[in-house]
Amino acid sequence: MSQKLTGAAVAEHNSKDSCWVIVHGKAYDVTEFLPEHPGGQKIILKYAGKDATEEFDPIHPPDTLDKYLDHSKHLGEVDMSTVEQEEKAFDPEEADRLERVKRMPPLAACYNLLDFESVARQVMKKTAWAYYSSGADDEITLRENHLAFHKIWFRPRVLVDVANIDMSTTMLGTPCSIPFYVTATALGKLGHPEGEVVLTRAAHQHQVVQMIPTLASCSFDEIVDARQGDQVQWLQLYVNKDREITRRIVAHAEARGCKGLFITVDAPQLGRREKDMRSKFSDAGSNVQTGDDSVDRSQGAARAISSFIDPALSWKDIPWFKSITKMPIVLKGVQCVEDVLRAVEAGVDGVVLSNHGGRQLETARSGIEILAEVMPALRERGWEKRLEVYVDGGVRRATDILKALCLGAKGVGIGRPFLYAMSAYGLDGVNRAMQLLKDEMEMNMRLIGAARIEELNPSLLDTRGLLGGHAGAIPSDTLGLHAYDPLEAPRFNEKAKL
Amino acid sequence: MSQKLTGAAVAEHNSKDSCWVIVHGKAYDVTEFLPEHPGGQKIILKYAGKDATEEFDPIHPPDTLDKYLDHSKHLGEVDMSTVEQEEKAFDPEEADRLERVKRMPPLAACYNLLDFESVARQVMKKTAWAYYSSGADDEITLRENHLAFHKIWFRPRVLVDVANIDMSTTMLGTPCSIPFYVTATALGKLGHPEGEVVLTRAAHQHQVVQMIPTLASCSFDEIVDARQGDQVQWLQLYVNKDREITRRIVAHAEARGCKGLFITVDAPQLGRREKDMRSKFSDAGSNVQTGDDSVDRSQGAARAISSFIDPALSWKDIPWFKSITKMPIVLKGVQCVEDVLRAVEAGVDGVVLSNHGGRQLETARSGIEILAEVMPALRERGWEKRLEVYVDGGVRRATDILKALCLGAKGVGIGRPFLYAMSAYGLDGVNRAMQLLKDEMEMNMRLIGAARIEELNPSLLDTRGLLGGHAGAIPSDTLGLHAYDPLEAPRFNEKAKL
Amino acid sequence: MSQKLTGAAVAEHNSKDSCWVIVHGKAYDVTEFLPEHPGGQKIILKYAGKDATEEFDPIHPPDTLDKYLDHSKHLGEVDMSTVEQEEKAFDPEEADRLERVKRMPPLAACYNLLDFESVARQVMKKTAWAYYSSGADDEITLRENHLAFHKIWFRPRVLVDVANIDMSTTMLGTPCSIPFYVTATALGKLGHPEGEVVLTRAAHQHQVVQMIPTLASCSFDEIVDARQGDQVQWLQLYVNKDREITRRIVAHAEARGCKGLFITVDAPQLGRREKDMRSKFSDAGSNVQTGDDSVDRSQGAARAISSFIDPALSWKDIPWFKSITKMPIVLKGVQCVEDVLRAVEAGVDGVVLSNHGGRQLETARSGIEILAEVMPALRERGWEKRLEVYVDGGVRRATDILKALCLGAKGVGIGRPFLYAMSAYGLDGVNRAMQLLKDEMEMNMRLIGAARIEELNPSLLDTRGLLGGHAGAIPSDTLGLHAYDPLEAPRFNEKAKL
Amino acid sequence: MSQKLTGAAVAEHNSKDSCWVIVHGKAYDVTEFLPEHPGGQKIILKYAGKDATEEFDPIHPPDTLDKYLDHSKHLGEVDMSTVEQEEKAFDPEEADRLERVKRMPPLAACYNLLDFESVARQVMKKTAWAYYSSGADDEITLRENHLAFHKIWFRPRVLVDVANIDMSTTMLGTPCSIPFYVTATALGKLGHPEGEVVLTRAAHQHQVVQMIPTLASCSFDEIVDARQGDQVQWLQLYVNKDREITRRIVAHAEARGCKGLFITVDAPQLGRREKDMRSKFSDAGSNVQTGDDSVDRSQGAARAISSFIDPALSWKDIPWFKSITKMPIVLKGVQCVEDVLRAVEAGVDGVVLSNHGGRQLETARSGIEILAEVMPALRERGWEKRLEVYVDGGVRRATDILKALCLGAKGVGIGRPFLYAMSAYGLDGVNRAMQLLKDEMEMNMRLIGAARIEELNPSLLDTRGLLGGHAGAIPSDTLGLHAYDPLEAPRFNEKAKL
Repeated sequence: MSQKLTGAAVAEHNSKDSCWVIVHGKAYDVTEFLPEHPGGQKIILKYAGKDATEEFDPIHPPDTLDKYLDHSKHLGEVDMSTVEQEEKAFDPEEADRLERVKRMPPLAACYNLLDFESVARQVMKKTAWAYYSSGADDEITLRENHLAFHKIWFRPRVLVDVANIDMSTTMLGTPCSIPFYVTATALGKLGHPEGEVVLTRAAHQHQVVQMIPTLASCSFDEIVDARQGDQVQWLQLYVNKDREITRRIVAHAEARGCKGLFITVDAPQLGRREKDMRSKFSDAGSNVQTGDDSVDRSQGAARAISSFIDPALSWKDIPWFKSITKMPIVLKGVQCVEDVLRAVEAGVDGVVLSNHGGRQLETARSGIEILAEVMPALRERGWEKRLEVYVDGGVRRATDILKALCLGAKGVGIGRPFLYAMSAYGLDGVNRAMQLLKDEMEMNMRLIGAARIEELNPSLLDTRGLLGGHAGAIPSDTLGLHAYDPLEAPRFNEKAKL
Repeated sequence: MSQKLTGAAVAEHNSKDSCWVIVHGKAYDVTEFLPEHPGGQKIILKYAGKDATEEFDPIHPPDTLDKYLDHSKHLGEVDMSTVEQEEKAFDPEEADRLERVKRMPPLAACYNLLDFESVARQVMKKTAWAYYSSGADDEITLRENHLAFHKIWFRPRVLVDVANIDMSTTMLGTPCSIPFYVTATALGKLGHPEGEVVLTRAAHQHQVVQMIPTLASCSFDEIVDARQGDQVQWLQLYVNKDREITRRIVAHAEARGCKGLFITVDAPQLGRREKDMRSKFSDAGSNVQTGDDSVDRSQGAARAISSFIDPALSWKDIPWFKSITKMPIVLKGVQCVEDVLRAVEAGVDGVVLSNHGGRQLETARSGIEILAEVMPALRERGWEKRLEVYVDGGVRRATDILKALCLGAKGVGIGRPFLYAMSAYGLDGVNRAMQLLKDEMEMNMRLIGAARIEELNPSLLDTRGLLGGHAGAIPSDTLGLHAYDPLEAPRFNEKAKL
Repeated sequence: MSQKLTGAAVAEHNSKDSCWVIVHGKAYDVTEFLPEHPGGQKIILKYAGKDATEEFDPIHPPDTLDKYLDHSKHLGEVDMSTVEQEEKAFDPEEADRLERVKRMPPLAACYNLLDFESVARQVMKKTAWAYYSSGADDEITLRENHLAFHKIWFRPRVLVDVANIDMSTTMLGTPCSIPFYVTATALGKLGHPEGEVVLTRAAHQHQVVQMIPTLASCSFDEIVDARQGDQVQWLQLYVNKDREITRRIVAHAEARGCKGLFITVDAPQLGRREKDMRSKFSDAGSNVQTGDDSVDRSQGAARAISSFIDPALSWKDIPWFKSITKMPIVLKGVQCVEDVLRAVEAGVDGVVLSNHGGRQLETARSGIEILAEVMPALRERGWEKRLEVYVDGGVRRATDILKALCLGAKGVGIGRPFLYAMSAYGLDGVNRAMQLLKDEMEMNMRLIGAARIEELNPSLLDTRGLLGGHAGAIPSDTLGLHAYDPLEAPRFNEKAKL
Repeated sequence: MSQKLTGAAVAEHNSKDSCWVIVHGKAYDVTEFLPEHPGGQKIILKYAGKDATEEFDPIHPPDTLDKYLDHSKHLGEVDMSTVEQEEKAFDPEEADRLERVKRMPPLAACYNLLDFESVARQVMKKTAWAYYSSGADDEITLRENHLAFHKIWFRPRVLVDVANIDMSTTMLGTPCSIPFYVTATALGKLGHPEGEVVLTRAAHQHQVVQMIPTLASCSFDEIVDARQGDQVQWLQLYVNKDREITRRIVAHAEARGCKGLFITVDAPQLGRREKDMRSKFSDAGSNVQTGDDSVDRSQGAARAISSFIDPALSWKDIPWFKSITKMPIVLKGVQCVEDVLRAVEAGVDGVVLSNHGGRQLETARSGIEILAEVMPALRERGWEKRLEVYVDGGVRRATDILKALCLGAKGVGIGRPFLYAMSAYGLDGVNRAMQLLKDEMEMNMRLIGAARIEELNPSLLDTRGLLGGHAGAIPSDTLGLHAYDPLEAPRFNEKAKL
């Protein structure tokens, strides 16, 4: 064991028949594991006999190899000085990106959450951006999520004393300084080397709850260890086919102090996200035409992590969850009023109305639209206090939060915007993003004439824009537009000729 | 007969008064046929005295000359070595196209049906693309067909056991692996040298039904001969003025094993498709200004094939069709609920709600919109089992198929997308297109919470977007837009000066 | 009188104090007329002492000077060889236009009415195009006129015998080959040197009615003289403050065989059309800043012709019109159901629902929208036979005509499209435009399943799109659009480096 | 006191610890004032030890230092010849602007109010344009304000005697030549060196009321002094926390002859306007990254003036206002029918339905939309005469004014358009803008068939477009649009090769 492996020794095992890879200075024999790799064999074989650390890191929590690869396959340390350094091919897009990173706008130039997204788009690695930003199919639901808020307009009240604004509330009993929480998003290290713990720190600073994702880049314990003071975290759960694994995860989370269990119910299969697939594809080499299409499983980061989810999960499982934990149980991804009513009857503590950030089913409705359908039905039955209703998807402005709360939501989840802020500016970015939301929130509560969260109510909104359902795009009148001669503004005089 | 004709001998007959053309190495005297040519005289005269094979092939089934030109006009073989090779004028657009063909994206880079269309647009011959892609007038209905699906959004159910997805169904009694069929489209050889038989092979591989078009480039028998195993085909029928011809076609199809007769009822006259006309026109030479406008009949491929259709076809003909065949009869192109009810009363077996791919009547409604009008009326009368209702037009995603089935369709027809896949990538392309639909279908059934076709129902949809009818485009506020100064994202610092 | 004036003699009178101009080789003293010129003094003063023929011609009928300038001011013939030829300043835009004229598409490349408009936009003189194409204010109504037809979709019937299509009808008792007429439009010579008589000839060839405009470039008698055979013309009338002038015009028209009197009621003042004003302005020299704004009356061709119209015209005048003519009386420009009902009570023979081609009141509704409001009210009262209802504005396709007729119109007026066809291609252009409409009409009647005009009815339409009134444009989500990374189609490989 | 300070002496006090600045040749010690400066310390520190006149002037009325800085801090005159002239860094954007100013279109080329805005955008200083033109958040409400008028269409009456148009009316008893007033807008000197008095002069010339802003660049007395003849002015009031200050302002205004008190109720906190913030930010130096984000208070001109406003202002304060003045009291910024009814009950004399020009709450509804909600409720109660209802926001055309009056408004306020006209062309510009509105008004009253203001009524409008609430933008079908091959107009022949 004292003898380190040489790079040359590892390099011999560079095929399907014998495949070794180096991660963090240690070699692993993954030959037998190849067919089981959720992300497909192809991506591993690309690194067969080589150092895969850089590719491995952002996608896998550090305890992955310990947990999932039999210890007999752990081959020991490698003398990294003997490993041949592969020279990377010059990538002009990546070179452009690095140049842009040098010219990044200062953090203070970001005035709203969309600004972080604009910057992140320019400075993030292409594959990371593709994974975070992509959505299902034509990304119509992805975009609808934010646009739906623009169908709801305010009916503000004036001459209300709004000298003192109190935007604090509680969620599942936890006091929060403002009614949003950091929702679970996967693979935080794609955007920032430290991953999800950055969000943990920001959540603490702003006194909001963080929901820990099952598919984090950091390990669950790392994220919990980053907790400070009386900070509260929840667990987002993908349910494994093997319920014993799930039971252990839940028990561990509860033992480590998590205060809520959010079971994802909108992802029996992880969605196809073509931008993500395209980015991965070109990464693997766009010129390789595979004869056998079915072998090609390199379908982007999204598909790489989907086999841990049980598509057979159903309402019948709810009592079991209630039996294994005392944490409040919330169903994340409910999408119509019928299922909310059923959730009440099932006795869960809450629902998140969500379409998974537009990443799963295309032309699924936005959470805010579902909320407008759900709350009147709950109120009609007098059930509005029997569970807490959350919404996520598309929240970018404090006005969005206010609209959800006026309709009856207890709070909203925000995911991507904080990832973008973190990817571009790290912890400072996330802190500023949260502070901007608080500034907007204070101002907008003043402007609608509500000093406290309790004063928010549906009469402050005009929601008629939601009633007509979804209009489709109108085919343009191409020839007519071509023939039309648009009006011009006054012409400035020509520049004098030199 | 042993003596072959020389090119020079043929070349003498190069005028309206005596017009010979060479097709596949044989000469034909078409002087008397000129005025009867459905595609107009002009295009034939362009090849008078010359070899017309390249132009002839994709538009005519191989048995055309045998069937339609009296054998006395068949002049025998030509010694092709004596035929002068015409040098083609350099066409910069065609040169660009050939260059693009060399740089085609690999098949694996196509992730959805629209991708094939984007590639085909770049690599198909201009006239072929124009014929396939064109629609009526301003192509508003053409585009509406797909966009209409975006007016329908999902109301998915969660916590349903969707471990095992079964997307199989039956159509007119035939088991299908997925509820779509390959609908009839004309002139397959414009896109691929082998024509419609490519679609036959793909349909077999994926166990879906192929509808054989009357206006195929391959002969009917070639397409039937390409059938494998227990594969099922239907016949799409344009009804000839001469009902005896029609009777023979139907009897032959039935004898050769076709299992359904789809009578086209939305094309008493083939539509004007201006993109197609324009492409044809420029092909014939845009500088020739004809004095007599009425002589110009070169109105694109669409009009070239329209004289075989009887505009007098009416409901009175239906009993006759029922008398000449035992195949189930389906009316293809029904467009309002009144006619569907009449179809039930006429005792046919099905209808296809369709506007002929947007190629006939402009601002005709999409099949999916008609479906939303039709099914409630059928259910109200308890007639929903008395005929099978199909929809075609604009289907590009499995979500589109699901929406049609939730509303009550038995299946959907898909045409152009497979033509595009075939034109760009041949059989591999069509196979991948079908596989992508299956992958999408499996995933989306999981995501809406339906494990079997039978579980699809209207409560899974929000169709309010269809209720308001068709909004028109809103004239832009030109001056206002000009005066408005759009918001900017944070500015990156300037590049340092060198 | 035998002595001709010299150019030099005329040139001396080149100021406000003494202003002579030459028109068609004769000199006129217009000094006293200057303040009365409807088009303002400025444009005359530009030609003071000079030859104004080129500017004068397209805007004034040839009998203008005889009619409106006292004969004492007619100074006699000028020896044109002595008149200094002014060299025109080089105008790069005009040079470009002349170059485009040389490269005009052949007439046969125009496949629809919008094509003529696209060509005319490129080849017409800038001021002529501005006068024809301009509309009120932001030109929203101008564009709405055509777009409104896209809110109405078809509900076609299939399996109707449409072998023989008869699209003939009658208007005010006159048989027409197709239900449109050539509506009145002013200043035909701006587009074509022969002016309105070109339209007279085309109307004859296609057996449609021509409405003669009060403000034609040709004189009324020239247009009547161009009539052939049993061709029918109507008179469009602007009512003069001096009713005796109006009485004489009407009597003359009736005497010369006009068969209908269309009184314009939507133009008590001629509209401001800013594109027209801007084009005129720059023509007069954009660098001249006038101190006194009120002096500047050069407000484009539209305003130049407006003082002949009596803004006091009212319902009280209708009996008088009925007393002075036996021609059927039609009110042109009625815009709401209340006024149509009043028109019935006033006993007129018809109304034209029109907003004057979008040239008068901005955000006035389209004729087709008003029609959808009017006809049910007439039918409710059983009044639909008591007057004929016409529509004009935005008709570009036979489908537009069909929609108007299905709703209940007797016919539609078409104006600008024929002006554009005439301006670009002369009589051949107008003939082709009319023939294209007939081709479209025949085909579309087949496709909706109506063989005769009488079979057109509201059940063939889906007009729900009109019910919701007018949506406004939706402000774009600028920052969000900026942050969004649109999906890409498959990438073609890079061109190989040389 | 006779001894002037030298530039060098002042320059020593260039830090937070001792901060002197020069304004109009006098030095001031602002060290202690720094933390209280509403615009933040940063902007003052930029000028510490220097001449700040140029920055100071447009933002502060001339009496500011006298009023707000203790006289002990007034250090006396500076010998300006000894003050070092700072050379300004070359700013390419500013250079471009100055070049554009030289090529400005002549005033006569402006045909409507939007034209002034287009010109102003090109010729105004960047920060001034940013302050005037900016709105809240995504500027959706900003743009909606004008676009909302396009949801209302006319139902004009014809054959009405409109020879004599009388557009005069009264507002709060004051006769006005046309039903608009110049509404209050802040910081007039940003656009024109003379500031608000320019508007005073134009208002006099056109006999319309001017509302004097609390936050004018000119002092209140300067603006009143500019009044001529029987010209009428109103006072717009931001209510100070210190009610005694407010009482004095109101008393002074009444004493100086103001005829109306407009209390702003929609701005308990001044809005965030990101364009304004961004423009200010870059002005202060975009490369300085501040460690402590909370210190950065340079949030644009808007925030700089907000601390004078009391967020505790409420309905309880209304009786007090009635007790301190005899001027009619109008609430400016009411935004829903509930508050209008409450205003009636509170006994005020009027309301302005307004969202503060889109500068405060994003997705607040437009004044015209609120008006359509308010007037029927007032009429239902017979309260429509109990207060005068005004509207502001987005008025650009006389048709906009007419729509508001038809719905029931007494008049409309217009702000930015006059600022733009003033900024680009000074008094001449404002006069022309007002005259254009009058010309449009006269014409449009003719065209809708109303000769007097009293004849305007809701039956002249089609307001159905307002009923459905606010539609959201529809996500584009990116891949579909990419695959679609738009129709082309006829192609012109290629230019001949040289």
